[in-house]
Amino acid sequence: MWKPDRNSTRPLYQQIADDLEQRISYGEFPPGSLLPSERKLAEQLGVNRSTVVLAYSELRALGIIESRSGSGTRVSDSKWGATPKHTPNWRRYAEGGNFLPNLPFLRRIREALAHDPSLIDFASGELAGDLAPIQEMNTLMRQTSNTSYFGYDNPQGYGPLRQALVTHLKKYRGIRTTESSILITSGSQQSLYLVTQCLLSPGDAVAIEDPSYCYSLPMFQSAGLRLFRLPVDERGVRPEDIRSLYKKHRIRMIFINPNFQNPTGTVMAQERRSQLLDAASELGLPIVEDDPFSLTAYQCSPPPPLKSVDSIGSVLYIGSLSKIAASGLRVGWMVAPNSVVERLADARQQMDFGLSVVPQSLAAQFLNSSYFTPHLDRLRASLLYKRDLLIDALQKELGGLVHFHVPEGGLHLWCKIVPEVNDSKLLEAAIQNGVIFAPGSVYGSASGYVRFTYARARAEDIPSGISKFAQALHAAIH
Amino acid sequence: MWKPDRNSTRPLYQQIADDLEQRISYGEFPPGSLLPSERKLAEQLGVNRSTVVLAYSELRALGIIESRSGSGTRVSDSKWGATPKHTPNWRRYAEGGNFLPNLPFLRRIREALAHDPSLIDFASGELAGDLAPIQEMNTLMRQTSNTSYFGYDNPQGYGPLRQALVTHLKKYRGIRTTESSILITSGSQQSLYLVTQCLLSPGDAVAIEDPSYCYSLPMFQSAGLRLFRLPVDERGVRPEDIRSLYKKHRIRMIFINPNFQNPTGTVMAQERRSQLLDAASELGLPIVEDDPFSLTAYQCSPPPPLKSVDSIGSVLYIGSLSKIAASGLRVGWMVAPNSVVERLADARQQMDFGLSVVPQSLAAQFLNSSYFTPHLDRLRASLLYKRDLLIDALQKELGGLVHFHVPEGGLHLWCKIVPEVNDSKLLEAAIQNGVIFAPGSVYGSASGYVRFTYARARAEDIPSGISKFAQALHAAIH
Ligand SMILES: Cc1ncc(COP(=O)(O)O)c(C=O)c1O
Ligand SMILES: Cc1ncc(COP(=O)(O)O)c(C=O)c1O
Repeated sequence: MWKPDRNSTRPLYQQIADDLEQRISYGEFPPGSLLPSERKLAEQLGVNRSTVVLAYSELRALGIIESRSGSGTRVSDSKWGATPKHTPNWRRYAEGGNFLPNLPFLRRIREALAHDPSLIDFASGELAGDLAPIQEMNTLMRQTSNTSYFGYDNPQGYGPLRQALVTHLKKYRGIRTTESSILITSGSQQSLYLVTQCLLSPGDAVAIEDPSYCYSLPMFQSAGLRLFRLPVDERGVRPEDIRSLYKKHRIRMIFINPNFQNPTGTVMAQERRSQLLDAASELGLPIVEDDPFSLTAYQCSPPPPLKSVDSIGSVLYIGSLSKIAASGLRVGWMVAPNSVVERLADARQQMDFGLSVVPQSLAAQFLNSSYFTPHLDRLRASLLYKRDLLIDALQKELGGLVHFHVPEGGLHLWCKIVPEVNDSKLLEAAIQNGVIFAPGSVYGSASGYVRFTYARARAEDIPSGISKFAQALHAAIH
Repeated sequence: MWKPDRNSTRPLYQQIADDLEQRISYGEFPPGSLLPSERKLAEQLGVNRSTVVLAYSELRALGIIESRSGSGTRVSDSKWGATPKHTPNWRRYAEGGNFLPNLPFLRRIREALAHDPSLIDFASGELAGDLAPIQEMNTLMRQTSNTSYFGYDNPQGYGPLRQALVTHLKKYRGIRTTESSILITSGSQQSLYLVTQCLLSPGDAVAIEDPSYCYSLPMFQSAGLRLFRLPVDERGVRPEDIRSLYKKHRIRMIFINPNFQNPTGTVMAQERRSQLLDAASELGLPIVEDDPFSLTAYQCSPPPPLKSVDSIGSVLYIGSLSKIAASGLRVGWMVAPNSVVERLADARQQMDFGLSVVPQSLAAQFLNSSYFTPHLDRLRASLLYKRDLLIDALQKELGGLVHFHVPEGGLHLWCKIVPEVNDSKLLEAAIQNGVIFAPGSVYGSASGYVRFTYARARAEDIPSGISKFAQALHAAIH
């Protein structure tokens, strides 16, 4: 994003006016469209609000923009003189479609991080750059950059990657499958999207964990699904809740993240897993098993996935490289019965013609390489180290004010704030103080919970981040 | 895809039975699900149908599968004994959602190409491997594989690629724009998908060219749009048709591919372009300008896009590297007003979290490199050469039986078949004869048109491909 040049002799407000005039003339802001508020633009550009006020008044004087009190600042459409010319009402188009916008808290977090990259980031659910196998990826890219095919690929995904996954899934997750049962997607996210769009119909009832990553996704509501909650206790969801939801609401699918659940970190207990599978097979109910975190298990091997003991094909299994290697690679996968894979591959061809072959071939090389296991070992040790830094800091700074379970894998710590506090107030106070987190309500929980991601921040920033958070908390509860 | 080993001492039918038993036990075909028909499986595996019949009867004898006449062969669900276990009815789930399946002709083409890669391919709308800048891409990948960031990226697209596109669009397309007005998508396809899903609502009327690539996309119907036709003559669509469609049906958007239109190759005439823009601005109607082919213009520079003279922001401009570099890269872009870019970026974050950074960074390097212009020169010369090979072959083999205009850019030749012929019969006869094409009805035209893509086949195969086609045509009209 363009920023004014503080070393230029041209005044800041003039530079801003010039830039806006250019953007308006290029069509970024067509005639009649709303400009950012003075406050927002000042924040984006990192200048005082008064500078933007000056820039806007300059443009107003030139007749390029107009302000009406109460309705903000707009690009003039009077310029067009006598012949009536109408810009499409883009704002109304942008409100079209069934697709709901992202949650306000998530938009706020994205905005705050874009505006101030120095924030200590406990909000983004991903690995820090130095936990990703960047060296390894770069070496692989250099070694084997002999891609010979660059055409439209099989919409089901690049063959060699599906082959690599057959081996990977058997070795690391105890899942026996075949190339033809695997669909490659843009992260787990696109697998979830395809399931909600193409296997379910508007009005269908589905069960999701409470709290759950799924609540952070308007995708479920956009697909017109009715969501019912399966409360997560320290041993996961209760299978009997599924039976009663089925009786009451005829739920048609269950979404579950059994290992190191996002956000709670919970691992579902063994006997509940068998009961869940029993209930599903009794009711003919499909289970979507979202399993991005298992291979981060810090100290003992992660529980086997439901899919590995699913004898009758009730489970759609979803995995991803995002949380164990690199989220920017956008490589995820689904293991599913033939009829499902075919349907989803066909639909996704319409949406995006399939994933780029470049990251797919890189992912295949990485999974097949001798780098993979050592990378995982290093990753697990680093996550454990960061988790302990976070826990120490929380205990030191916030002793009796927080409650949490210690996660044994994953990227997140789920934290109850004991004193009563307003999520929004706490978030703003934290941002003010230079630290950011994800409010629990994003995941469907009541106010007063916080998800701290310890994977993303630098280790050395974790203690000071929590001390900034503690200050913000004290400010927000008083 | 697995194929039986013809050198093994184990009989083919036994190998096939073993493989199926494994796939069934792994859940690819859950209990109760339908197996491929004997004919289809034989085709997939490249064996005689009688071999598959034997394999199926072997599995039937083991109680693993059951056949009932009229309802095909299914995996037994009797295995589960007394306790009632139910596999979800995956077939019913696969029929859910609003997303319509691909057109039968396109599925047939995909299937035929997967089954017999030796078919001479006039159907796939893409470049041959040797027209793609593979050497250049590989060199760039080797030189600059120092990616330092692998996290979730800005859902609007990788910054350096958007920067490169600002320069590219100005230099090659006369479009002045800014980084913040560009959205990177998975090819033009995803731009079209986002527009139909997020800017339009079910029931909205839109105008598309007739014939048009859009007709090949059930995406439009899946979004619940009502489609109205703008007939394409040798100078493109007629602006007055837009006014009358607007009056009659209140169309809310126009989709147009003005340069080297797919499938007709038509270039829209200059005065019609200004009239189109006038009509759009008078009616406040947005135009979606899909422009993937312009830079292939063989001999003179391509007409400037509508977007370059769109003074009031009526045009959403869509471009792509697919037809000028490599479709497997999956890099496309949209230039749009701020409110549209923000809305679409937000929605696409829900769908797939944005494009992988790897192909985006590669695309940026390629656009910025000194390889780009020489690559285009070579591409244009090769396409022209292939076009002429096709035309010579058509004239030689099919003299008075075909009519066409000579395309001056793009990948396709649109061909009227003079004698009456059934599309489906012609396609099957061609496949039998070792050649494949796209029937015109895929693009919404009446029977008796063929789209020949000359970019994909090897130059040396073009004459023999057309001679095979000629045989098929003679067979189909008799
Ligand atoms: C439980 C869970 N599923 C899916 C995803 C989507 O991740 P990706 O699409 O990067 O694989 C996330 C990311 O936060 C997650 O936490
Ligand atoms: C006119 C037109 N638009 C868009 C596309 C989609 O191509 P891509 O998504 O690869 O850019 C095609 C491909 O055939 C096309 O012909």
